[in-house]
Amino acid sequence: MTGLLDGTFARGGASAAVSGDAWFRSLLAVEAALARAAARAGLVPTTAADAVTAACADPGRLDLATVVARAADAGNPVPPLVRVLRDAVGPDAARAVHVAATSQDVVDTALMLMSRAAIAVIDADLAAAAQSAAGLARTHRDDVLMGRTLMQQALPTTFGLKAAGWTAGLDGARTRLAEVVASLPVQYGGAVGTLAGAGPLVRDALAEELGLETTALPWHTVRLPIADLAGALGAAAGVVATVAVDVVLLAQTEVGEVGEVSELRGGSSAMPHKNNPVAAISARACARRAPGMVATLFAAMEQEHERAAGAWHSEWPTLADLLVTVGSAASWLAESLACLRVDPARMAATAEAAAQVIPAAAGLDVGEAGAQADAALAEHAQLVEGGA
Amino acid sequence: MTGLLDGTFARGGASAAVSGDAWFRSLLAVEAALARAAARAGLVPTTAADAVTAACADPGRLDLATVVARAADAGNPVPPLVRVLRDAVGPDAARAVHVAATSQDVVDTALMLMSRAAIAVIDADLAAAAQSAAGLARTHRDDVLMGRTLMQQALPTTFGLKAAGWTAGLDGARTRLAEVVASLPVQYGGAVGTLAGAGPLVRDALAEELGLETTALPWHTVRLPIADLAGALGAAAGVVATVAVDVVLLAQTEVGEVGEVSELRGGSSAMPHKNNPVAAISARACARRAPGMVATLFAAMEQEHERAAGAWHSEWPTLADLLVTVGSAASWLAESLACLRVDPARMAATAEAAAQVIPAAAGLDVGEAGAQADAALAEHAQLVEGGA
Amino acid sequence: MTGLLDGTFARGGASAAVSGDAWFRSLLAVEAALARAAARAGLVPTTAADAVTAACADPGRLDLATVVARAADAGNPVPPLVRVLRDAVGPDAARAVHVAATSQDVVDTALMLMSRAAIAVIDADLAAAAQSAAGLARTHRDDVLMGRTLMQQALPTTFGLKAAGWTAGLDGARTRLAEVVASLPVQYGGAVGTLAGAGPLVRDALAEELGLETTALPWHTVRLPIADLAGALGAAAGVVATVAVDVVLLAQTEVGEVGEVSELRGGSSAMPHKNNPVAAISARACARRAPGMVATLFAAMEQEHERAAGAWHSEWPTLADLLVTVGSAASWLAESLACLRVDPARMAATAEAAAQVIPAAAGLDVGEAGAQADAALAEHAQLVEGGA
Amino acid sequence: MTGLLDGTFARGGASAAVSGDAWFRSLLAVEAALARAAARAGLVPTTAADAVTAACADPGRLDLATVVARAADAGNPVPPLVRVLRDAVGPDAARAVHVAATSQDVVDTALMLMSRAAIAVIDADLAAAAQSAAGLARTHRDDVLMGRTLMQQALPTTFGLKAAGWTAGLDGARTRLAEVVASLPVQYGGAVGTLAGAGPLVRDALAEELGLETTALPWHTVRLPIADLAGALGAAAGVVATVAVDVVLLAQTEVGEVGEVSELRGGSSAMPHKNNPVAAISARACARRAPGMVATLFAAMEQEHERAAGAWHSEWPTLADLLVTVGSAASWLAESLACLRVDPARMAATAEAAAQVIPAAAGLDVGEAGAQADAALAEHAQLVEGGA
Repeated sequence: MTGLLDGTFARGGASAAVSGDAWFRSLLAVEAALARAAARAGLVPTTAADAVTAACADPGRLDLATVVARAADAGNPVPPLVRVLRDAVGPDAARAVHVAATSQDVVDTALMLMSRAAIAVIDADLAAAAQSAAGLARTHRDDVLMGRTLMQQALPTTFGLKAAGWTAGLDGARTRLAEVVASLPVQYGGAVGTLAGAGPLVRDALAEELGLETTALPWHTVRLPIADLAGALGAAAGVVATVAVDVVLLAQTEVGEVGEVSELRGGSSAMPHKNNPVAAISARACARRAPGMVATLFAAMEQEHERAAGAWHSEWPTLADLLVTVGSAASWLAESLACLRVDPARMAATAEAAAQVIPAAAGLDVGEAGAQADAALAEHAQLVEGGA
Repeated sequence: MTGLLDGTFARGGASAAVSGDAWFRSLLAVEAALARAAARAGLVPTTAADAVTAACADPGRLDLATVVARAADAGNPVPPLVRVLRDAVGPDAARAVHVAATSQDVVDTALMLMSRAAIAVIDADLAAAAQSAAGLARTHRDDVLMGRTLMQQALPTTFGLKAAGWTAGLDGARTRLAEVVASLPVQYGGAVGTLAGAGPLVRDALAEELGLETTALPWHTVRLPIADLAGALGAAAGVVATVAVDVVLLAQTEVGEVGEVSELRGGSSAMPHKNNPVAAISARACARRAPGMVATLFAAMEQEHERAAGAWHSEWPTLADLLVTVGSAASWLAESLACLRVDPARMAATAEAAAQVIPAAAGLDVGEAGAQADAALAEHAQLVEGGA
Repeated sequence: MTGLLDGTFARGGASAAVSGDAWFRSLLAVEAALARAAARAGLVPTTAADAVTAACADPGRLDLATVVARAADAGNPVPPLVRVLRDAVGPDAARAVHVAATSQDVVDTALMLMSRAAIAVIDADLAAAAQSAAGLARTHRDDVLMGRTLMQQALPTTFGLKAAGWTAGLDGARTRLAEVVASLPVQYGGAVGTLAGAGPLVRDALAEELGLETTALPWHTVRLPIADLAGALGAAAGVVATVAVDVVLLAQTEVGEVGEVSELRGGSSAMPHKNNPVAAISARACARRAPGMVATLFAAMEQEHERAAGAWHSEWPTLADLLVTVGSAASWLAESLACLRVDPARMAATAEAAAQVIPAAAGLDVGEAGAQADAALAEHAQLVEGGA
Repeated sequence: MTGLLDGTFARGGASAAVSGDAWFRSLLAVEAALARAAARAGLVPTTAADAVTAACADPGRLDLATVVARAADAGNPVPPLVRVLRDAVGPDAARAVHVAATSQDVVDTALMLMSRAAIAVIDADLAAAAQSAAGLARTHRDDVLMGRTLMQQALPTTFGLKAAGWTAGLDGARTRLAEVVASLPVQYGGAVGTLAGAGPLVRDALAEELGLETTALPWHTVRLPIADLAGALGAAAGVVATVAVDVVLLAQTEVGEVGEVSELRGGSSAMPHKNNPVAAISARACARRAPGMVATLFAAMEQEHERAAGAWHSEWPTLADLLVTVGSAASWLAESLACLRVDPARMAATAEAAAQVIPAAAGLDVGEAGAQADAALAEHAQLVEGGA
């Protein structure tokens, strides 16, 4: 990923939630919470835990350059981070750092925190897109649109029903993400998962400190939480893509039933008549990167013994990239739908022309399109209220 | 897939649940249920619906060869099936066939039925594997095992904790599959999703007849149910793979802590000393096919307008193959764990030798391994009871 | 894959080239060639080799049911096949069966034979599609078509240039497949690749018998030949997909510049006006299954020690399915282009209307479209001649 | 990708070859070469072309911040870059900027340049790894190693043969990359590929200026060059992974036949006895990210009309990430093999112990292991000389 392409592929806030800074903040948040959890369990003095918390809260004072320099050789960033942190808090508080933990405990838990933060941003963009879609569904509840199957005009429907379908899809994606976020677990088990030197109390306190769920066992090599994230993010990408492709197809010159109207975008200098739906196109581009990343994460579930030799590591940038690309897709779609101009007159004209040649379309009967759209909008309203 | 490889890659019962016969039975089950639903809604006479139900229950009397011959040219199997079915029931009952439905309504709903049936079989194999794993965890609750991280001996744990982790993973995969199965929705909307010529009552009755959920809107191009299946099946494959790789690694000649003991399998004629863990190897082989299929299904979520021109179709064999390969993986893993011989003496000897050179391992302290295994086994017992 | 869907997803001849029968024929062809190669190297009597060849040529007399029954437990089909074959030829000739070979030698070499046979069929369909595309390019060399970028009308081009681009793409896919086929290597190294009990002479004679290349070393776990197949097949699928999506888009009701004209296909009973481009849609559906399979094959390249425990096995059905789906895609595309009706009048009308509103299109200047199409057609002619 | 993880996942020089700076440099190199090519064809004055070349050579004087700010809204970076460049060269030379080109011409050609540069770096790391492997093969030509199939000890081979296999694989990956690099084509066709306003002369001169190949037609939507890159990079990743997994497995505590000896890496603070093969593990982690990216690129081959609405864009970051992850994998593997300590005594002891229990291994016959290794090393020497 490069700065030049970030406006397209690192759009929205998810990228900041998994940045290098975010990694540091998250790893330190875990170490700080672990110190407090160990203090709550009586394993270390509260004053030492406070010192660790204070040091973690002020990363600017830590020698993070050393951590960056040594992370790769250590195999992961935690060993040098722990050393730097112990140096920072001094010998007395040092024993409150990384109590009975293994690197994977800290990395995995930090990934859960970053995923939660990134999904909060993604969800906000999906919610904005859903709100726009719902608004379109209400505004155009009864506007006739020629339904198209296999890319051929088929029978009439309404733009309201189409936009309600978008709304339902985006809401469904949000619901799945919310379920996954609510179940994100802490990771804590020590070197080989036995909780040696600590115990379930520390784990549970750590979970409580961070607002994460707990599990009966560490999930060092049983990667269901990663699979859950991959599945829900892949589903969100898919919903964004299907809405975006509808926008792109309806915006075709020959169809012209919708268009993105934005002062910033869409014009072609060589062809001033062109109004490219840049936001929908970009949403599609970002969403299409997701399935390959999802496959990488599922393939990485095969993890050896008590800690995998490569598969585990491959998750870190892949999950981060997946969050970024799904976030970018959601952000672009929110922009697209916010500036979507719908042309009911063109829709009606197309439908009426079709009705001349398609006997079954003669009456422009749209069946229960309105009632179904209403039902979906009612569910949407419930979700919005429930989330408020 | 070929007959010669079916013993490996079409193992267990999932394959039968998505066979050509299963397709016919499922499509006919949907048409029969739709006739009854239409009768319940007063759209067609009950006698006509009964005639359709009777014809669908006896596929041997239908001209299915014609359906096979014409399915590809029609773009999907439903148009020729409807023609054959209408011919079979005669002109009076013909109007009760395929009432206000579109091909996709029938294909998608049939896929839900086949997925449910296949997952029932997959779940039984996962449950058997989990039961074996739980048995191993109980039997070897306190047997010391050298934990290995990054493929290096690290610190001691127990085989009980390892097997409890397998159990928890398999149970987690089952829970996810159960959630997806419980939410599988009917598809019913007619040509462009408006319910023209029918209404929500028919849809809801159809769902009820088939024991499926209903949705506010058709999901013709918003493919969250397919994504849910892909995610849960991919997760199940990943859990199977991580257990299988543990078996394969622990069975290495140099490790020798477990072995598959089966009269049928594992020997090499050229090397009689070899005891290949064929079941675990095959489980791994089957599981590794899943991520690519999962990616295909997520990529297929981008569907155009009211019915996609290709992406939709690509789901059919891919979802079927995914069910078969995950089912095969689960079946093999159940066989592997059922015949797993564990060698606690070898484990202990290895751990004791390691303790000589690893200071931190000196006391062979396994921390809370036992308590954690107990906690996981208690959750397992709850799941087993809840499922009974 | 089921019978009901085979007309769509197992179209063309590739499926027969990787069927269960084809597996048997190919495995037996390798064993027969190996017996002859061993005889040529003086390791076994020629009469014994002849007996093996004769037995392999008549699979109907072999107890293949036993092979099917035992293949999975053996981990692969070769051990039971060798036993059956030795039984069939009797004790004297038995020593000429499977000389100094390992199962992987036979399976891998058989896969090369099946890939070669399947690609011959795929290539024929790609060639037919390319011929149709070239014909369209010649016929419509100067027919103006409105070029479309980002799904918006842009500037004029010609249908001839578009069809020449299809031709070049299909020819490029064929060239890549031909290069891969020409380099397909024999596999022969014995249990751990040392050629113990045989030697390079046997390997080279085996390669010669089968018309395969030889390599300095066995490639038991260095899977470049599989990667080459995966890459070239994936590329072929991609070219088919991009031609197919053009057909589908140009056939849209609102565009109407091309249509598939087939007595067999395309009509909708409910909507007689609809003319679905079923062949192009099906080509797209088949092609979209390829990338996930390609990923599975690349992921399977990580193979352990002297023979992989699962990754190797996962290649068999995946490569077979990839050949089938690419073959089906190519077959459908050949059918689509063979029945493609192009409407130059509609193209011209659209272009002229566009020229009214797009200043840069005013002169309908198509630049060097004709000359470029000619250049591509000349290259096509060379390829056709070279292949003849 | 974040700074904290760059040491692992952006290792080696490939990352710099596709950085934001590299994008600018490459886009500007294309614009400069195009100006010169247009001058050579007589379309613009040489002085104007010189002015453009000069401006492109000094990006520090260009207002690149504006390009970054506007790239996303423009749909790609070229429109704002052209505007900034025209402003920089002034009105007279402005007409020599972007002559008859479309954005895709510049982006695609720049991607070819970046791919070539990145692959040069990747190739150097692969060559270093191959050289180390060849050295190991020579040193340990006759050192007996117990061959392992399906993770079980099988029959004896030599470490020389194993390392020669690694060499051949790495050389094979290099050969494939070299073939692809040698065929990388320029992209030049103008808005819809007709070469309107220019002609084949400009295209051919542009190719010559940049040292790229030319094609009969633009490949705006026929993406074989991207597929070629994806295939060869995926193959390279696979070879790296299979060597890396051998290292990881041979370095297991229980096997102990190789180890990475590096002052920088591998130790565990908690477990000082542990010597993690960090470089091989990291190589594996990087390589495992490739197949999903390869799938994304193959899936993106389905591109619409004269320029795709999303699929094209999705290639940019994906190809860049693929180059980075394959480059990182190659870099790590080079480090791993450079510091690999082989323990022939341990190998011998293991083999001798095995020979006690495996009848077929009794004589420790390694067949033609030495001769085969020699053959592979001879091919390696030829490749090294040929490339020098």
